[in-house]
Amino acid sequence: MTSILRSSTHPRWFAASTVDLPVLLSDHLHCERKAAENALALVRRYPHRGTSVGQLARLAHEETSHVVQVGALMARRGWVPRTDTPNHYARALLAEVRGREPERLLDALLVAAFIEARSHERLGLLATGFARAGDAELADFYLALADAEERHADIFLDLARPLVSAESFAERLDVLGERETDVLADLPHTTRVH
Amino acid sequence: MTSILRSSTHPRWFAASTVDLPVLLSDHLHCERKAAENALALVRRYPHRGTSVGQLARLAHEETSHVVQVGALMARRGWVPRTDTPNHYARALLAEVRGREPERLLDALLVAAFIEARSHERLGLLATGFARAGDAELADFYLALADAEERHADIFLDLARPLVSAESFAERLDVLGERETDVLADLPHTTRVH
Repeated sequence: MTSILRSSTHPRWFAASTVDLPVLLSDHLHCERKAAENALALVRRYPHRGTSVGQLARLAHEETSHVVQVGALMARRGWVPRTDTPNHYARALLAEVRGREPERLLDALLVAAFIEARSHERLGLLATGFARAGDAELADFYLALADAEERHADIFLDLARPLVSAESFAERLDVLGERETDVLADLPHTTRVH
Repeated sequence: MTSILRSSTHPRWFAASTVDLPVLLSDHLHCERKAAENALALVRRYPHRGTSVGQLARLAHEETSHVVQVGALMARRGWVPRTDTPNHYARALLAEVRGREPERLLDALLVAAFIEARSHERLGLLATGFARAGDAELADFYLALADAEERHADIFLDLARPLVSAESFAERLDVLGERETDVLADLPHTTRVH
């Protein structure tokens, strides 16, 4: 797949995000939890939308398995998950979701697609970075998770595409893609996935 | 396991709950979704509590697979999930959760245990009832789901037990057990799991 992302993560992000590994993995655990919760919230809000219930529930099923895996890896290393803190990246994107249907669902799905695409990019960067740093366990772990997440953005795009005309779809993808890049550029690099 | 339930479901419940199967299965789909969401909410609120993150995330993983399965069965029969409506049973029990820790977590886990135990009982009744009514597909489906849910109440009880003294634990289980029976007795029999 060609990514929908308009920008690549800054090369300095890896060093900044891995300063405190228990904090990074704790943030990652909560990201996977929130991804599962987001998919389930869409089932709650749009139960009647054809095949989307099955696709969203399968997505939540996969994300919950990632919560289990991150939790198990943290436990093996003696790291305890922390309390989640507000994610300014996701919040800034969710603020773009318009209030009326079908725009609300379209935007919610496109924002989810961007978050998944960015997560996929960053889990891949963690895999490469940990391999270079000689931590084979974390490198393998993040390579497997990045692979698993690769299709997730496409699932949301496929659910979003039939909601509006091809022109409106491309236009909105463009607007949100620019916004995602701006939001990311304005954030400091910290020990978070994003 | 000996069930923690203080009462058995009234024999007339099966007939009342199965009057409109698409509505019952839609309610069941949302019950499984909410069970997954509840487990994930406990991960969010109590991320630092030892092994509970893994157990709760595995529980959410299993519940999301049940959402997938109920959704797939509904799709096969051409039934479309409806919008969820307030669940007075769960709400009445959740109203018993006290505000201070560790009582808050203890109560949240015990209430979840009662909801799981009652769901297990009722999915079993659906299995028996559908078998008697000659719907083998639904009978097999509910037998498998009732089996899968059998350990869930115990998982919550095991997480709750170490939080307080054995005496406080038994006492609270007693109070909530009586309340669960009263709440259930006051509810009309409708096309819902509970």
